[in-house]
Amino acid sequence: MIQLLIVHGPNLNLLGIREPEVYGTEPLERINEKIRIWASKNDAEVHIEQNNNEGKLIDIIHSRSEWADGIILNPGGLAHTSICLFDAVKAVNIPTVEVHLSNIFARENFRRKSVVAGACVGIIAGFGGESYIIACDSLKTLLQRK
Amino acid sequence: MIQLLIVHGPNLNLLGIREPEVYGTEPLERINEKIRIWASKNDAEVHIEQNNNEGKLIDIIHSRSEWADGIILNPGGLAHTSICLFDAVKAVNIPTVEVHLSNIFARENFRRKSVVAGACVGIIAGFGGESYIIACDSLKTLLQRK
Amino acid sequence: MIQLLIVHGPNLNLLGIREPEVYGTEPLERINEKIRIWASKNDAEVHIEQNNNEGKLIDIIHSRSEWADGIILNPGGLAHTSICLFDAVKAVNIPTVEVHLSNIFARENFRRKSVVAGACVGIIAGFGGESYIIACDSLKTLLQRK
Amino acid sequence: MIQLLIVHGPNLNLLGIREPEVYGTEPLERINEKIRIWASKNDAEVHIEQNNNEGKLIDIIHSRSEWADGIILNPGGLAHTSICLFDAVKAVNIPTVEVHLSNIFARENFRRKSVVAGACVGIIAGFGGESYIIACDSLKTLLQRK
Amino acid sequence: MIQLLIVHGPNLNLLGIREPEVYGTEPLERINEKIRIWASKNDAEVHIEQNNNEGKLIDIIHSRSEWADGIILNPGGLAHTSICLFDAVKAVNIPTVEVHLSNIFARENFRRKSVVAGACVGIIAGFGGESYIIACDSLKTLLQRK
Amino acid sequence: MIQLLIVHGPNLNLLGIREPEVYGTEPLERINEKIRIWASKNDAEVHIEQNNNEGKLIDIIHSRSEWADGIILNPGGLAHTSICLFDAVKAVNIPTVEVHLSNIFARENFRRKSVVAGACVGIIAGFGGESYIIACDSLKTLLQRK
Amino acid sequence: MIQLLIVHGPNLNLLGIREPEVYGTEPLERINEKIRIWASKNDAEVHIEQNNNEGKLIDIIHSRSEWADGIILNPGGLAHTSICLFDAVKAVNIPTVEVHLSNIFARENFRRKSVVAGACVGIIAGFGGESYIIACDSLKTLLQRK
Amino acid sequence: MIQLLIVHGPNLNLLGIREPEVYGTEPLERINEKIRIWASKNDAEVHIEQNNNEGKLIDIIHSRSEWADGIILNPGGLAHTSICLFDAVKAVNIPTVEVHLSNIFARENFRRKSVVAGACVGIIAGFGGESYIIACDSLKTLLQRK
Amino acid sequence: MIQLLIVHGPNLNLLGIREPEVYGTEPLERINEKIRIWASKNDAEVHIEQNNNEGKLIDIIHSRSEWADGIILNPGGLAHTSICLFDAVKAVNIPTVEVHLSNIFARENFRRKSVVAGACVGIIAGFGGESYIIACDSLKTLLQRK
Amino acid sequence: MIQLLIVHGPNLNLLGIREPEVYGTEPLERINEKIRIWASKNDAEVHIEQNNNEGKLIDIIHSRSEWADGIILNPGGLAHTSICLFDAVKAVNIPTVEVHLSNIFARENFRRKSVVAGACVGIIAGFGGESYIIACDSLKTLLQRK
Amino acid sequence: MIQLLIVHGPNLNLLGIREPEVYGTEPLERINEKIRIWASKNDAEVHIEQNNNEGKLIDIIHSRSEWADGIILNPGGLAHTSICLFDAVKAVNIPTVEVHLSNIFARENFRRKSVVAGACVGIIAGFGGESYIIACDSLKTLLQRK
Amino acid sequence: MIQLLIVHGPNLNLLGIREPEVYGTEPLERINEKIRIWASKNDAEVHIEQNNNEGKLIDIIHSRSEWADGIILNPGGLAHTSICLFDAVKAVNIPTVEVHLSNIFARENFRRKSVVAGACVGIIAGFGGESYIIACDSLKTLLQRK
Repeated sequence: MIQLLIVHGPNLNLLGIREPEVYGTEPLERINEKIRIWASKNDAEVHIEQNNNEGKLIDIIHSRSEWADGIILNPGGLAHTSICLFDAVKAVNIPTVEVHLSNIFARENFRRKSVVAGACVGIIAGFGGESYIIACDSLKTLLQRK
Repeated sequence: MIQLLIVHGPNLNLLGIREPEVYGTEPLERINEKIRIWASKNDAEVHIEQNNNEGKLIDIIHSRSEWADGIILNPGGLAHTSICLFDAVKAVNIPTVEVHLSNIFARENFRRKSVVAGACVGIIAGFGGESYIIACDSLKTLLQRK
Repeated sequence: MIQLLIVHGPNLNLLGIREPEVYGTEPLERINEKIRIWASKNDAEVHIEQNNNEGKLIDIIHSRSEWADGIILNPGGLAHTSICLFDAVKAVNIPTVEVHLSNIFARENFRRKSVVAGACVGIIAGFGGESYIIACDSLKTLLQRK
Repeated sequence: MIQLLIVHGPNLNLLGIREPEVYGTEPLERINEKIRIWASKNDAEVHIEQNNNEGKLIDIIHSRSEWADGIILNPGGLAHTSICLFDAVKAVNIPTVEVHLSNIFARENFRRKSVVAGACVGIIAGFGGESYIIACDSLKTLLQRK
Repeated sequence: MIQLLIVHGPNLNLLGIREPEVYGTEPLERINEKIRIWASKNDAEVHIEQNNNEGKLIDIIHSRSEWADGIILNPGGLAHTSICLFDAVKAVNIPTVEVHLSNIFARENFRRKSVVAGACVGIIAGFGGESYIIACDSLKTLLQRK
Repeated sequence: MIQLLIVHGPNLNLLGIREPEVYGTEPLERINEKIRIWASKNDAEVHIEQNNNEGKLIDIIHSRSEWADGIILNPGGLAHTSICLFDAVKAVNIPTVEVHLSNIFARENFRRKSVVAGACVGIIAGFGGESYIIACDSLKTLLQRK
Repeated sequence: MIQLLIVHGPNLNLLGIREPEVYGTEPLERINEKIRIWASKNDAEVHIEQNNNEGKLIDIIHSRSEWADGIILNPGGLAHTSICLFDAVKAVNIPTVEVHLSNIFARENFRRKSVVAGACVGIIAGFGGESYIIACDSLKTLLQRK
Repeated sequence: MIQLLIVHGPNLNLLGIREPEVYGTEPLERINEKIRIWASKNDAEVHIEQNNNEGKLIDIIHSRSEWADGIILNPGGLAHTSICLFDAVKAVNIPTVEVHLSNIFARENFRRKSVVAGACVGIIAGFGGESYIIACDSLKTLLQRK
Repeated sequence: MIQLLIVHGPNLNLLGIREPEVYGTEPLERINEKIRIWASKNDAEVHIEQNNNEGKLIDIIHSRSEWADGIILNPGGLAHTSICLFDAVKAVNIPTVEVHLSNIFARENFRRKSVVAGACVGIIAGFGGESYIIACDSLKTLLQRK
Repeated sequence: MIQLLIVHGPNLNLLGIREPEVYGTEPLERINEKIRIWASKNDAEVHIEQNNNEGKLIDIIHSRSEWADGIILNPGGLAHTSICLFDAVKAVNIPTVEVHLSNIFARENFRRKSVVAGACVGIIAGFGGESYIIACDSLKTLLQRK
Repeated sequence: MIQLLIVHGPNLNLLGIREPEVYGTEPLERINEKIRIWASKNDAEVHIEQNNNEGKLIDIIHSRSEWADGIILNPGGLAHTSICLFDAVKAVNIPTVEVHLSNIFARENFRRKSVVAGACVGIIAGFGGESYIIACDSLKTLLQRK
Repeated sequence: MIQLLIVHGPNLNLLGIREPEVYGTEPLERINEKIRIWASKNDAEVHIEQNNNEGKLIDIIHSRSEWADGIILNPGGLAHTSICLFDAVKAVNIPTVEVHLSNIFARENFRRKSVVAGACVGIIAGFGGESYIIACDSLKTLLQRK
């Protein structure tokens, strides 16, 4: 059984309401349910948290560093600037996949790079809520390969 | 009657003490009082919060997204870098005016741009505590025009 | 009684016709009338000029440097590049407020900074023709505070 | 019958004398004559102006905004920096072709971009005085296609 | 049944031999086999091509533009610079997923951006050969959602 | 009689289908026909080629370097980056006109410069398929002037 | 007797575990003990806090602004970007020394500058946990000199 | 006898009043008088003009291109950006000396380069009103050397 | 006996004709002959190819990866931009020397860096056709040292 | 007993006279005396040199490479640009601490980075002459830890 | 009587031989003689030195800091990069004029700025050897004004 | 007989000791011996100097400008920044080859360009001590060709 920490960053709590033409109409809770269904089908345990606060996100990652086999992290707007989240992922040394709902490469200039991804094993972006499920699958495969 | 959310960002709690040659000697509470007087005279209700924390500022904006007709936001030093505050203003989709006490264009290089303002309807900077009252007037006019 | 110089820069004579989705449908003359009404109500005298020419704008500012207590300046597209207008405002040493109809931070990259604002006491942008009235109020408050 | 406004920008009055190795030995008047001949042959009316002044160029464009079906604009050195000319072309909303005598891409670095062209339908550069005749032909075709 | 075009870009033919510490020891043929197995299990038809040539990659994409429901494209080193591949993906207007074996954000500076991804629906990077299978799954989900 | 080589670069084979809001609905073959009609009327011989491949485009230019009196080159997306095409035009030393269907100055940032144009005599951009005919006229005039 | 506030920024709670090849194997508690021993020997009182949150770090600095004679601040990854921490140090106007365990000039490019240090009296970097003791000594000397 | 054109650019009419800590307290007329005295002593004829307008400055330079043996040009704030003044100096092909009252290298960043100087024979900056007399001497020597 | 692959990139087929003031009058065939003479004297076998196509150059390098002991590569204009050629040299892991006829550091700005050289053991530039012979000597010495 | 080389770079001989508002009024000799007192108390031997010459500073470092256990280097203005000093410190491979009297992060932009520090174990800046004593202490601790 | 230090920087000893098309055919000794003649006529004493060494130039400036009333400094190629020379001029606090033989603004890009000039009172460039005499005159006037 | 000046720049005296993984274990004296052997075999006279000082290197180049037929220059870390060495090579106008032991294109970013090489005929880098012998051969061939 694998244990996955799912971390949703700033503004993701407003999913479904927030700029639906960019992020879709699916609320976060629906995505979380899909993740839990995936977990039950894949003999996995998931712990899901959302926070709008860089510092709290670091706390969450730290506090689960013993428990988690892998992390799925959507850093939201912090992806593009946060050296501290980069450091946090490096510090806990757990395979982490960066996830984005939208394709960050097809948006404003300031979204076309990710600082945080440099500390991750990979990135999945552009598939809406499905990005998380893809990440779950990928991380599972990755962990089993080890 | 209009409902306005007033959000003071990092370090604004120290107004009056903090670099008075830049920010003046008027403490934040005095500015807040003036805002409340303005509200009572203008048939408006105001909710005022100050926080030093980017994440909490996002929480405040989110939590008042049903209640507020308009937002007056002084993001302090976060104005120049915070993509997450930009996203939060976009997400709640409420007319927001960015306010600064000092003229950010006449200071250090790193203060001469605003990331957050890109999500706002406008910006008012350089009038000390009066900037907020001007913003209240402007926002009222703007909301009535709709 | 305060005396205010109102200076409209390049292309503002075409207001109402020019890109109405950006600048609104209100012609410049209507804005000027509102300014004059404001003046009559606020015991102020205003002198209003529009010119498409950087050099003429400097001349106007210079020629009223004895008369004006304050200046409201919409430098239009010159805001982003004109060192000479910056110098002119510095030279006459009169409190000047930079005004923009649109929110320059939410438009093309080359509009997201203001050279001229560095010589002003403050900036007001994004409120359409109302930006001028807000600036009149602000400048009046500022001049009375002195 | 189509009505074309031909606008020559700064320093073009010195054509023939000015750096002939770059701009050729043909004086501006000769080019203007060719344009008039073209007009007489093509059932077109042309109005030609030259000015060294950004502001006057804007005035000329504005003042002919009712009359002109199309504009041929050689902004000279203003092409590379003038946001106000860009705005003027946008404001009058008339099909405009930017013209250069020399190939701006094969000269100094600061000439290798055009701010003004961003508001035009197209650009023609490098054919000496002939550039104007080519632009006349192109604009005629373009206007007839509409 | 869905029809997927799989396009491997420059140097991917050397997989398994090429810098194995970066790209792993799995040869391209093994990855292709896995893709074909995935296809047989998922009621999909795949067409797989590898080419070291930007022009040929464009030809391949063009020639399958009628046939393909979706494209999985690993542009290799062309991802970071090729405007023509960006244009080709835009031109055929077929949902395309950019795939990378390695995490391009954790490598040399010149690999930390993707020009081509701007024309795609999403990007998957960092999972070795598994990146393709993940992309197949994602694209299938995406096409069924339509 | 003059002999002109017409070279269409990457993705131009998809004209008419490809992003018609940018490039129009006219297929390449129709443009070629117009060029041939122009040739028959202007006592000119034309050789027309399209290729998606930078190397092949260089080959085409080289192979016609004896035959061609002038070249009309639409480098497509290669215009903005290809030093090799720049070198090829320099190498054959034949008057070359760079042509674009769209106005490259009014599009994405990465299209607002041309490396290849630095080796050409001039540039014509923004007139759709008509750009080629204008270029034919211009080149003819230019060659006769010599 | 002097009173020193010691502030540890993001990820420093993981010291000893976190990338030991960069930060060493000494846990934060051991460093804190050394600081307390230094305090007892140097007639000083120290207050030590660690937090992963930019906003909380600002709160801590503010809340001790009456009590502290000097501040030793390790802003971690926030050093390189946080204008708000810069503002906080400026606001409280207490001699502050920036401390880093590793030599930030010998690491990734994004670590080779410090925004926060601009508001401090000095910087000490590269001596592991010893950096704090050196800072204590330095700050003591500095405060006694006043 | 030599004939010198002296051209004062934008804002120089306010000399003596304008930022005296930067530009000194000497009004422009006093400088002009000194230039006339120099002329009478040096068997020179001078023509002096001041204008705030880039276009007019170009006109002045053009109109005296037959008469003048040399030009002394203080482009004021235009020095740093005006390609058109650069072109005008190139066009008339008369030895021109750029003059500044203040040392442009010891001021704001945007003043530390001169576009216009690239077309001049030399530059003299930092000697207040004396800069003009030095330039007169230099230009005289230069013209006599020819 | 050593086996060397000699690869000539874009436009080198035109040597002797192409910009002789930069590249000399020696045709490529003459250089190849000198290389073959060198080979016969140095107990070496050489395989020489020229291609104008980035993709083909990669194919050539790949296809000789078993055979070649060393590679001499003149990437022409691709040197300055091609990440794919960089990757190809890395991929085959054969000692490669980059060669240029002209001194790329004494030419246009865009030629003053080499992306491809980062994957090579060294670079030789500026000696015309002789650069190849020097490279042959160097590579031989290098291979014998191993 | 440890042996420390103390190297003072350009302009440090003028300490006490030179810009005392930046560097203090303490002459270099007084700092050197303090260093010698420190040495006598700490069972250390010090060799102190000052030179205004990059090359001589390299010579000094080289010539003491056998003798010195540690180096304290104040590169003055060379810190920000000298690759050769960086190379010299790397070459002798002795633990080196970079020292600055002033806080380089709170001064002109060009002083806010250090090239030389990249080769050092750490940096101490902002404590005036005391910076050297702090560096002595730190280096001693560091050398004893080994 | 005034005492002037004249300092010639790197490569100026080769004047007359060195790139005469840029620097003229006048050897340094002839310039020095002219300076001495000027001195004898102007009741001035001059001390002239040339050195190719940044460190020695600093030594020369330092060693004459008691003696010199003014400095004329031609830093040659060091002008564009040397922070240490900037610091040396600041340190001695003597009015210094930067001199160049050629017009640095009309040459290579890397010569179009001066770091050293930021510490000087002014700059004179472009008058060949005469630049020094002009500087002598200017400095004399400046010193007498004090 | 040809006369060659061999100039070794900063830190090359430490060859063999200095970062052997980058520069190899061969001391400078061994390289010099090989150069002398080459000279004896090639009817050449060589003069070899090493200096850590930019100014002295310029002196050496100047003092041998009559004697030397060619120069081989390893500017070490000065290659990347020294305009003065660039000027010195230009000034003496002797064919000069820049030499580097390591491949500067495969190292830190700041080593990937050469200012000095712009004044040389060519560059040879990456062959360790052998680079010098290759340069001797190349220079000999070059001098004989003249």
